[in-house]
Amino acid sequence: MPQKVRIALDAMGGDVGASVVIPGAAIALRRHPDAEFLLYGNSKLIDEQLAKYPALKAASRVVHTDVTVAMHDKPSQALRRGRKSSSMWLAIDAVKKGEAHVAVSAGNTGALMAMARFHLHTMPGIDRPAIAGVWPTARGESVVLDLGASIGGDHHHLVALAVMGGAMASVLFGKPRPTVGLLNIGVEEVKGGEEIRKASEQLRAMNLPELEYIGFVEGDGIGMGAADVIVSEGFSGNIALKAAEGTARQMADFLRQAMAASWMSRIGYLFARKAFKALRDKLDPNKSNGGVLLGLKGVVVKSHGGTNAEGFAYAVDVGYEMVRCDLLTKINQMLNRDGSALAQAQTAQEAVS
Amino acid sequence: MPQKVRIALDAMGGDVGASVVIPGAAIALRRHPDAEFLLYGNSKLIDEQLAKYPALKAASRVVHTDVTVAMHDKPSQALRRGRKSSSMWLAIDAVKKGEAHVAVSAGNTGALMAMARFHLHTMPGIDRPAIAGVWPTARGESVVLDLGASIGGDHHHLVALAVMGGAMASVLFGKPRPTVGLLNIGVEEVKGGEEIRKASEQLRAMNLPELEYIGFVEGDGIGMGAADVIVSEGFSGNIALKAAEGTARQMADFLRQAMAASWMSRIGYLFARKAFKALRDKLDPNKSNGGVLLGLKGVVVKSHGGTNAEGFAYAVDVGYEMVRCDLLTKINQMLNRDGSALAQAQTAQEAVS
Repeated sequence: MPQKVRIALDAMGGDVGASVVIPGAAIALRRHPDAEFLLYGNSKLIDEQLAKYPALKAASRVVHTDVTVAMHDKPSQALRRGRKSSSMWLAIDAVKKGEAHVAVSAGNTGALMAMARFHLHTMPGIDRPAIAGVWPTARGESVVLDLGASIGGDHHHLVALAVMGGAMASVLFGKPRPTVGLLNIGVEEVKGGEEIRKASEQLRAMNLPELEYIGFVEGDGIGMGAADVIVSEGFSGNIALKAAEGTARQMADFLRQAMAASWMSRIGYLFARKAFKALRDKLDPNKSNGGVLLGLKGVVVKSHGGTNAEGFAYAVDVGYEMVRCDLLTKINQMLNRDGSALAQAQTAQEAVS
Repeated sequence: MPQKVRIALDAMGGDVGASVVIPGAAIALRRHPDAEFLLYGNSKLIDEQLAKYPALKAASRVVHTDVTVAMHDKPSQALRRGRKSSSMWLAIDAVKKGEAHVAVSAGNTGALMAMARFHLHTMPGIDRPAIAGVWPTARGESVVLDLGASIGGDHHHLVALAVMGGAMASVLFGKPRPTVGLLNIGVEEVKGGEEIRKASEQLRAMNLPELEYIGFVEGDGIGMGAADVIVSEGFSGNIALKAAEGTARQMADFLRQAMAASWMSRIGYLFARKAFKALRDKLDPNKSNGGVLLGLKGVVVKSHGGTNAEGFAYAVDVGYEMVRCDLLTKINQMLNRDGSALAQAQTAQEAVS
């Protein structure tokens, strides 16, 4: 467990860059006084912001670069142009070199995935990394992955996601054996495509001591908190996340309109404004900002590109927590228990199919 | 345009059967006095219910059968056991024979799809049928398909879904050229798998006079009303629907808890109760009940299995409207415009790839 948590920030990432990243880091520092920051990007823009936050300035080191990955660069372009020089690359490089414990970027997701994979490499047994997020549910919180790092994938990939998500839930929620479900279009054994059914059989046969596989979960089971970990390939995972976010926003708009519709409802709003504030806090989308890239030899956190300082601070919090709870060690332990959990998975699969 | 709309009901379908189906039909009849009903199932159970609704009784004919498709029968089992004899089959058969204009069932989705496809057959150019639903959005309503009739599918399938969804939106919303978007994990051209990108190129190249293709739409775009029609293969479409339903339910629960949290908020609730009622009506999940099976030579509507009489009535309404607005003719016209829109699609695809 490190004494100080050193966090590398891509200060140019996101729709606005330093003017969100630096104030966001300042908020996170107040919550975690034992954090230190490495700030990569245009030093003029960074210093302008840092001047407003003396405590952050004292806890930071600025590394200048002119090169920035654009939000709409293709991953291949970003790698070609931004390798070894961009603010995003340098933040990842700090993790690679052991100068930072975690890198956080609000930049282009595809570019971040590509650079992190290229430079940090995936863990043994992991083919493709995933993005995991924390989803607020009726019963607390669940880890949901993959939120869009890759599309499709066979049953080995789904089992790897289950193991990595289980590790994250275990350290994050302090549960020795978190429950894990596979996202599907029905809960019956016969539902879904071949790969998801194979993954289900395999997880059941493995019967891992570190996670309790509970079977299939439908889309509405995520918000019900049907499992501590919900596993999906990245296309459907991303669609589920965005559909849920969209519905939450839409309902908040409907509620606002309803409360403004008459003087009676406006009076009602005044009486109940504390309740509405509590509801707003509970549903604050900023609070679920921060997707963890899992499966890499290093911790990287992706923030929404369009977030504000509050939201970016939550993404920094996520990175901080993943370091403090030693996520990488836990994942490595699970992947390598008794040799290799995933190699064992294949044997298990052969035994039942 | 038929003078009377004849609706065949699987009176045994759903979690409770006749005690929801018959009261639901009675509600729908009040809204559509020009409807007539054919009721298939256990005549004793049906007659017990009909005794309470004399107007419905007068507008109905009961056809007895002892055979029922169970909610958890596999499609193959249902076909083997229930073909030619089950209440579900007989309702579909009435459409096949022209005795009814539409069949409505709250029964087992897989069995309904299998029987409808087996007995009614798909339209020329359509490989697999789809389930389309009407989704309430910030701007009104959108048609979303496929909600889970089949999993995966190539670009031809996605283009066929776009054409059928366009036809449905056109007759339902009275728009000569509804907008159509493909559900994807990003709006940029490079996002998504190969098939979805091919479908996008193809729809752009076809430039159909009956629909305006607007490109990719993300999960949160559905609720924003980004397009009149949102097209997805059935796995992701089902996940999006359920994730949105789950979120809406979860937020309604949070709101209820917040309003009950203190005496101030309870007073606020009393003042604003009309606003809350309007909100509840707007978000009533019953109102979006009723998925239309598209691509068959006949109109079949699937109701949620767990719905109540109000919800079942909405599914009957959907069936009624589809007959009144002559959905099948419109789809046929679009599929067969200038020869065949889908055959033309293939040419278009070859021209751009």
